[in-house]
Amino acid sequence: MNPCSSVLLTDLYQLTMVQAYIEQGMMDTAVFELFVRRLPAQRGFLMAAGLEQVLDFLERLQVSPAELEWLKQTGRFSRSCLDYLETLRFSGDVHAMQEGTVFFPNEPILRVTAPLPEAQLLETRIMNLLNFQTLIASKAARSVLVAGEKPLIDFGLRRAHGAEAGLLAARASYLAGFAGTSTVLAGMEYDIPIYGTMAHSFVQAHKDEKTAFEHFALAQPKNAVLLIDTYDTEAAAHKVVALAPGLKQEGIMVKGVRLDSGDLADHARKVRRILDEGGLPQAQILASGNLDEYQLQRLMASGAPIDSFAVGTAMTTSADAPSLDCAYKLQEYAGRPCRKRSEGKATWPGPKQVYRQYHRNGRCDYDVVTTVQAPGAGDPLLHPVMTGGRRLAPAQRLTELRQRAATQLAILPDSLRSLEGGHPYDVRISQPLQDLAQAVDECV
Amino acid sequence: MNPCSSVLLTDLYQLTMVQAYIEQGMMDTAVFELFVRRLPAQRGFLMAAGLEQVLDFLERLQVSPAELEWLKQTGRFSRSCLDYLETLRFSGDVHAMQEGTVFFPNEPILRVTAPLPEAQLLETRIMNLLNFQTLIASKAARSVLVAGEKPLIDFGLRRAHGAEAGLLAARASYLAGFAGTSTVLAGMEYDIPIYGTMAHSFVQAHKDEKTAFEHFALAQPKNAVLLIDTYDTEAAAHKVVALAPGLKQEGIMVKGVRLDSGDLADHARKVRRILDEGGLPQAQILASGNLDEYQLQRLMASGAPIDSFAVGTAMTTSADAPSLDCAYKLQEYAGRPCRKRSEGKATWPGPKQVYRQYHRNGRCDYDVVTTVQAPGAGDPLLHPVMTGGRRLAPAQRLTELRQRAATQLAILPDSLRSLEGGHPYDVRISQPLQDLAQAVDECV
Repeated sequence: MNPCSSVLLTDLYQLTMVQAYIEQGMMDTAVFELFVRRLPAQRGFLMAAGLEQVLDFLERLQVSPAELEWLKQTGRFSRSCLDYLETLRFSGDVHAMQEGTVFFPNEPILRVTAPLPEAQLLETRIMNLLNFQTLIASKAARSVLVAGEKPLIDFGLRRAHGAEAGLLAARASYLAGFAGTSTVLAGMEYDIPIYGTMAHSFVQAHKDEKTAFEHFALAQPKNAVLLIDTYDTEAAAHKVVALAPGLKQEGIMVKGVRLDSGDLADHARKVRRILDEGGLPQAQILASGNLDEYQLQRLMASGAPIDSFAVGTAMTTSADAPSLDCAYKLQEYAGRPCRKRSEGKATWPGPKQVYRQYHRNGRCDYDVVTTVQAPGAGDPLLHPVMTGGRRLAPAQRLTELRQRAATQLAILPDSLRSLEGGHPYDVRISQPLQDLAQAVDECV
Repeated sequence: MNPCSSVLLTDLYQLTMVQAYIEQGMMDTAVFELFVRRLPAQRGFLMAAGLEQVLDFLERLQVSPAELEWLKQTGRFSRSCLDYLETLRFSGDVHAMQEGTVFFPNEPILRVTAPLPEAQLLETRIMNLLNFQTLIASKAARSVLVAGEKPLIDFGLRRAHGAEAGLLAARASYLAGFAGTSTVLAGMEYDIPIYGTMAHSFVQAHKDEKTAFEHFALAQPKNAVLLIDTYDTEAAAHKVVALAPGLKQEGIMVKGVRLDSGDLADHARKVRRILDEGGLPQAQILASGNLDEYQLQRLMASGAPIDSFAVGTAMTTSADAPSLDCAYKLQEYAGRPCRKRSEGKATWPGPKQVYRQYHRNGRCDYDVVTTVQAPGAGDPLLHPVMTGGRRLAPAQRLTELRQRAATQLAILPDSLRSLEGGHPYDVRISQPLQDLAQAVDECV
């Protein structure tokens, strides 16, 4: 069973509502939008990601015979509901921000326009996909901003929340500017560069560390990156130096060493000196071990001679903010705009567009959220991506999305490029949208 | 592509190490153990979960032809490594704590005994599965302890980290004592009771709230739980009361209402009075909306007339601690015990057993971690579950695991039953294990 493609990966209430809609003949067109209500603490911006997986899900959407049979035997669903589900395909339109786009609270990043039961049923999985990848791309972008030109590698699979989280975290972090991942399947599925060295167990399985290093270098002559903190980091660096001449005779250059514990800046300085004095100036230092963007910032500021960083759990789980306050809300049904007014959770009604305005220096200045009918100035951020259930263009390559993300980070205002986030970005609600909200409230 | 069953859902270094082991003929038996180094802040205990998915993964382990072909074309792997992977099956033994068992730092919850390359290659996915479900069961158990007899429902799928996370969080929380989940696929896959009401969009799609309630009740006559906070909570409760006589004539009882925003205790009191005075004393109140165990505790303490709670994001992402500091470490190779001595990450060597001692009142008193050879007193917590790659018994039913979990929570010392966790539980390292560690250190 592959949970990633099952229509039943949804909340039960989606099905109970679908049944009620069918029984009442409420099959008119609905408009839902997905947006984030508030930024997590310590975030100045978010980066949209996950659209590709949403479109893929919508294109393939289908209830399998086994799923239909199971639904039937629960006794919960009417014949008309089951008949509807049996032939269900997604027939609607989708507008979205392209992946890699930077966005802010109250800005829709996805709009679904479809018959009400279809648009409703999809809510759970659309949120599940966009919440997660946007969360990870937004977190990873922070490390990218801090690390500058130094390559970052995703090492997070083991503590990712399950299989799909590990795979999609590799994708989202690469999109945001990471150089690659240790997750092999992400290499196969998404053509992301894969990286890997050795584990402590490799050293432990050998009677001595030096033999372990030698065996690894012989097996990986082009990728001889040696993990040197299993017992004593500096002693291991000396062993690497002692081994290097023999390996050189075999045509093997020591490509680098990995540090995974202790005071990484201090070890890096000591190890760098040992390697340089030992005739291995080309050997690079990779640091790993519970890193996040704050530790990266400290290590960068310390001037420690570290060439690249592996970031794992903190990024893959977005540890300081493991979810977004996102919502997928009905904005219009049968041509009638609507909004929710629940305490602390009110929404802006109707289908919307977001326009971005730039400073003369090319940096983002402010955004305007407005109705789709109102005229807007600047770059519209939502684009049509699917019509009648079919994509308007083939999937973009991940390298293109990555390029867009890099451009987006480059044009962020300086205040949003720091880890603290600075002043909130200016998101304006247009007068036409405010008027519409008032008109809707007066109708209820 | 189903990432949940792919052998390539692993770190690249597992494959590079496998290649080195094969080339060096290092195929002897290795013993790896999985344990947690430290409890997350605000946790007094952990609850083991995820073993069933690990055993399933080990039994089905196989590199597919497409995966093998992809590995080949990367040019990274030797012929002997590819040949090994082509026929790879898991042939080892597994000992483990049963799911639902409460455990503490430094106690192995899983031991793999297998030829070194096999035991190594599996590290990533074993950690990925056990870290996540243990994390969620441990988090969910806290809400269970607080809520007492009041039913808890998992509503977290939309902000779970991908598909598998949503599905397995439903499983882990049910195991820990939740009454059920909104995730339909968890009902189909694991026979977990599923629950669902209606969304705000259902109310919004109708011209007025009263019609929405009526339509929903007609479509779900046995499950008429109405969401009453879309516009004005108390006004909506009055609408429910006004509708009830008409529905009763159709044979429909209002089963309950759901509150999802605002001051839940205050709304619950007002709504309870409206329902009672309106002749609906049987209608239950379900509360949801960014709940976690601390808010549950406050709501319980306030005596608010809430009958059941839905817990979502905070539980599904284990928001205050979204990962465990867990490790899968080599403890012995070819009969030689070993340990890692990295700063802050040292491990106890050799295959181990955990014995639990109880007070006369039946509560847990202390645990002893010792070598498998040493005699132990009390309950041994690790049991053989797989031999030669085959399970020793069919999968236990989830309801049985749930019963074990309930018993485990019942015999926790009182100090560990509070959300603050109290004094750390007493975990003793036996003299034979300390002696072994010293002997290993002297050998290196």
